[in-house]
Amino acid sequence: GTPSSGSSLPRLPSEPVDKPGSRWVRLNVGGTYFVTTKQTLCRDPKSFLFRLCQEDPDLDSDKDDTGAYLIDRDPTYFGPILNYLRHGKLIMDKNLAEEGVLEEAEFYNIASLVRLVKERIRDNENRTSQGPVKHVYRVLQCQEEELTQMVSTMSDGWKFEQLISIGSSYNYGSEDQAEFLCVVSRELNNSTNGIVIEPTEKAKILQERGSRM
Amino acid sequence: GTPSSGSSLPRLPSEPVDKPGSRWVRLNVGGTYFVTTKQTLCRDPKSFLFRLCQEDPDLDSDKDDTGAYLIDRDPTYFGPILNYLRHGKLIMDKNLAEEGVLEEAEFYNIASLVRLVKERIRDNENRTSQGPVKHVYRVLQCQEEELTQMVSTMSDGWKFEQLISIGSSYNYGSEDQAEFLCVVSRELNNSTNGIVIEPTEKAKILQERGSRM
Amino acid sequence: GTPSSGSSLPRLPSEPVDKPGSRWVRLNVGGTYFVTTKQTLCRDPKSFLFRLCQEDPDLDSDKDDTGAYLIDRDPTYFGPILNYLRHGKLIMDKNLAEEGVLEEAEFYNIASLVRLVKERIRDNENRTSQGPVKHVYRVLQCQEEELTQMVSTMSDGWKFEQLISIGSSYNYGSEDQAEFLCVVSRELNNSTNGIVIEPTEKAKILQERGSRM
Amino acid sequence: GTPSSGSSLPRLPSEPVDKPGSRWVRLNVGGTYFVTTKQTLCRDPKSFLFRLCQEDPDLDSDKDDTGAYLIDRDPTYFGPILNYLRHGKLIMDKNLAEEGVLEEAEFYNIASLVRLVKERIRDNENRTSQGPVKHVYRVLQCQEEELTQMVSTMSDGWKFEQLISIGSSYNYGSEDQAEFLCVVSRELNNSTNGIVIEPTEKAKILQERGSRM
Amino acid sequence: GTPSSGSSLPRLPSEPVDKPGSRWVRLNVGGTYFVTTKQTLCRDPKSFLFRLCQEDPDLDSDKDDTGAYLIDRDPTYFGPILNYLRHGKLIMDKNLAEEGVLEEAEFYNIASLVRLVKERIRDNENRTSQGPVKHVYRVLQCQEEELTQMVSTMSDGWKFEQLISIGSSYNYGSEDQAEFLCVVSRELNNSTNGIVIEPTEKAKILQERGSRM
Repeated sequence: GTPSSGSSLPRLPSEPVDKPGSRWVRLNVGGTYFVTTKQTLCRDPKSFLFRLCQEDPDLDSDKDDTGAYLIDRDPTYFGPILNYLRHGKLIMDKNLAEEGVLEEAEFYNIASLVRLVKERIRDNENRTSQGPVKHVYRVLQCQEEELTQMVSTMSDGWKFEQLISIGSSYNYGSEDQAEFLCVVSRELNNSTNGIVIEPTEKAKILQERGSRM
Repeated sequence: GTPSSGSSLPRLPSEPVDKPGSRWVRLNVGGTYFVTTKQTLCRDPKSFLFRLCQEDPDLDSDKDDTGAYLIDRDPTYFGPILNYLRHGKLIMDKNLAEEGVLEEAEFYNIASLVRLVKERIRDNENRTSQGPVKHVYRVLQCQEEELTQMVSTMSDGWKFEQLISIGSSYNYGSEDQAEFLCVVSRELNNSTNGIVIEPTEKAKILQERGSRM
Repeated sequence: GTPSSGSSLPRLPSEPVDKPGSRWVRLNVGGTYFVTTKQTLCRDPKSFLFRLCQEDPDLDSDKDDTGAYLIDRDPTYFGPILNYLRHGKLIMDKNLAEEGVLEEAEFYNIASLVRLVKERIRDNENRTSQGPVKHVYRVLQCQEEELTQMVSTMSDGWKFEQLISIGSSYNYGSEDQAEFLCVVSRELNNSTNGIVIEPTEKAKILQERGSRM
Repeated sequence: GTPSSGSSLPRLPSEPVDKPGSRWVRLNVGGTYFVTTKQTLCRDPKSFLFRLCQEDPDLDSDKDDTGAYLIDRDPTYFGPILNYLRHGKLIMDKNLAEEGVLEEAEFYNIASLVRLVKERIRDNENRTSQGPVKHVYRVLQCQEEELTQMVSTMSDGWKFEQLISIGSSYNYGSEDQAEFLCVVSRELNNSTNGIVIEPTEKAKILQERGSRM
Repeated sequence: GTPSSGSSLPRLPSEPVDKPGSRWVRLNVGGTYFVTTKQTLCRDPKSFLFRLCQEDPDLDSDKDDTGAYLIDRDPTYFGPILNYLRHGKLIMDKNLAEEGVLEEAEFYNIASLVRLVKERIRDNENRTSQGPVKHVYRVLQCQEEELTQMVSTMSDGWKFEQLISIGSSYNYGSEDQAEFLCVVSRELNNSTNGIVIEPTEKAKILQERGSRM
C-alpha cells in the first residue's frame, strides 16, 4: 500500500546501514546481497528472521566481512519471502517454481505464507487437471420450411451437432412436410458458474412440441 | 523517444555521480543498485521518488555506505517503474508477475502507472476467459447435380458441417432430382470486428429458395 | 524443514566467513559467488563438494584472491545442486534445462540427485508424448417420443456423436414409432485411473434392449 | 561472423580499459556495467552511442566514479542493442518484451534496428491472429462395393467428413447398387504456399462423374 | 562426466587466480565476469578462446584493471559456449534464443558447436511445422443386432466417425436385418513410427465382407 504515514520513507536524521542502532539490515543469502529494514524482518514474530533482527549485531549472529548477516539458503526464492514481509502478498513470477518458495517459507517459519503458497500450488493443480470440457445438449424440432431460419439464427455459443429428418414424409397423398430434429450443444464453462443460457424463444417453443408420430 | 534536445544526453562539464548538485542519483533498492537522474525521478510530483530527489543529499535521506539512497522494496519490479518514469510506457517481460509491478506502483504512489497496470491485468484476464469460440451457421440448398461443385467451391473460412438429403426422390415416375441441404459454419472471430462474410453469390440465391415440399 | 534445533541458525559467538575454522564456505563457481556452510557441503560423503570442505583451507584448494574456492563449472545450474544439499529436494524453475542440472549432478558425483533428475526428465517426456486422447463409445436406443429427454439429460462428460434412425417406420398400417440409436463417447482420462463412469440408469436399460428388427 | 582478420581479437600491446586512447569503453547503463569497444559503439554514425565514443573521455561526458559513462536507461533491453551493433542481427530471448527493445532502439536513434524490431513485432502479431484454419472440400462418389476400399485408401492429409447414400436403391427390380457420396476435407496450410494436393487418381475420376439421377 | 581423475578438482599446492602460470583464467565478457581454466579454453584448438589461453598473460591480450581478459561480446549466450567446452554438450534454457548461441559459436569459431546449434534450430522448426495430424480410416460392417457390441468394444485409439445404414431393409416380406457401415479413424502418430494398429479381430472379418447389395 501507499506509505502515507511514511514508515518506510527515508527520514531525518540520515541513518547509514550498519551503524549501531540503524534501522537497515543487510543480508547475504547464499552469496546474494539483500537490504531491508528491521521493521520488515520483524513482521512475523515466530519467524527465524524476527530472531535475526532482535540480536545485538555484534554479539550474536554470523556475518560476512562486509557486516551482512549470513544465511545458508537460496537467494532466488528469497525475493518473494521478503516481499511478503514487506506488503503481505504472495507474488511469484511465472517461471518460478512454487515449491522453491514453499521450502523457504517453511525454513523461515512464516506460517501464514506457508498456507498461501500451498493454496497457490493447489489452485494451479486444479486448473490444469480439469479434464475434458462438459457439454449440454438440446433437441430442436421444426418443419422443413422453418429449417433455414432456425439454423441461421442459432447463436450465442450454441453449436450445431446434427440434423436428422423424421416423420411422415412418406405417407400416400399426405400434405405433411418433412420434419427435422436438430441437435445442438453448448460448453459448460466454469466461469459462467454453471448457468446455461437457453436457446432463443422460438426454439424453446419447438422443444416443447412432442414427437410428431 | 529520441533525445534530439539531449536532455538525457551526457553534456559538459562532466558531472560525476554523487558530487553535490550532480544530476545523477544512485538507488539501492533492496540490495540492487540503480542509477538514474533527478529529472527521471521527478516525473511525477506526487510520487515518493519525487520527494527523494528534492532532498538535500546530506541531510534528509537514508543512504548506504556508497552514498546510494536506500529503499526497502523489491528490485525486480523496480525496473518497469523506472522505465515508466523515463519514457512513459508500461513494458513488462512475459514472465513478470503484473501484480508485482502493481504493488510497487502503489507504494511509490504513481497514479497514472497504477491505472496502466490495472488495465493491463484486466486485459489479460479478458483474453484468457473468452470462453468457447462462437459460430454462425447457414443452410445451403441445391440439387444433386450441383452438389459436387457447391462443396468444392466452399472456401473463405466456411466449414462443412453436414449434408442431408430431402424432398421427393420417392415419388412415382417423378423426374425430380434428389435435393440436398448443406449446413455450413463460420467462426465469429473477434479480430474481424464481428463482420461475417457472406457465402458466395450462388449460395446466397440457393439460400433464398424456400422448402421444396 | 524448520530449523527448530537451529543448526543453520546464526549462533554465538560470531563467526565471520573465511576465518580459520569458520563453518562458512565461499565458492566462486564459474565467476559467480555462492556462500554456504560446511554442513551443507558435507551432506553427501562421496561428492566432490565433500572433499572440498574437508581440506585445510590454506593448503589444498584453488582459491581466488578473495579466498573463495574456485570451481570451473556453470553457476546457473549450481543453485539446484546446492539447494538439494540444503533440503534434499530437487527444485527447478520452469525455464531451466533439466539436462544442465543433470550434468552438474554427475560432475559433483551426487548419486541420489542424479537419480532424481533422470526421473524428472523421464516424467516430463512421458507427459508430452501421450498421443491422442482415447475414447470409449456407447450406443443408446430409444423411441422418438423419448428422444428429446434422453439427449437433454446426457451429461457428466458424455459427448454426443451421432443420431441415426432405424426400424420399421415404413410398415403399412403400423403403429410403431420411429426408433433411434444415439452414439455417445467419453474421453478416457488418465487421472481417473481408467475408471469409466457409466451413462445414467435409463440409458443402461435401453442399451440392454436388443435390436428391434 | 568469424573474426579472421581479428578486429575484435585481443592484440599487442596490452590496452587496459580506461587508459587514454584505449579502444575499450565502459558503460554504466541504469546501474549495470557493460564493456565494449569504440568500434562497436561507432557502428551507426547517427546514433547517440556514436557521439559517446567520439568525445574526449575527460571533458565531455558524465561518468561514474569508476570512469564508466553514465546512461539513464534500462539495462535489460540494452543487451540486444549492443549485440546488434556487434553483429548486425536482432536477437531477443523468448520472454523479452519486444516493445522494450524498440523503446531503447528509438532512444539511441539506431534507425535500422528500429525497423527490424517493428518488423519483428508485426510478424509476431500476424502469427497469433491468423484466425481459424481454412479448409477445402471435395466430394467423392462410388458404389457400395467400392466404398470400403475408397475410405481405407484415403490418406495424405485428407480428412473424412461425411458419407451419405444417394440414388436409386428403391427402384423396383433394379440391379443398381446403392451409390454413396463421401465429403472429404483438407487444411489449407500456409507453409505449403496454398498448394492443395489433389486426391488420388481414382477419386478424381469419380469426381468427374455427374449426378446419377 | 565425473572427475574421477580429478583434472578439474582443486589440487595442491594452492593456485590463486592470476598468478603467473596459474591454470585459472578470468574473462570479462561484455562486462560480466567468468572464471574458467586453460584446459577448458583449449578444448578446441581452432577457436579464438584457444588463442587466448596460449598468450603470455602480460604481453598479448587486452585486460581490464582486475586482470581479466576483455571480450567485446554478449555474456548471456557465453554460458552455453563455456559449458560446451567444459563437458561437450549443448544445453540451453527454454527461454534462450538459439540464434544468440549460434552467433557466439560462430564468433569464437567452434565448428562442432556451430553444427550442434544449427541442428537444434532445425529440429525445433520441424517440430513446430508438422502440419495437421494425418488419419487413416477403416470401414466396419455389421448387422443391427451386432451394432451395440461393435461400437462399445471399439477402443485402442480408434475414433468413431459415422454410422450409416445400408441395404435391403425395405424388401417386401424380407427377414433381412438392417445393415450398418461404421467409419472409424485413427491418428497417424509419428512416435509410433508409422505403425498403424489394426482394429480388433471381429472387425477385421467384417471388413473383408463385401457389399451386401
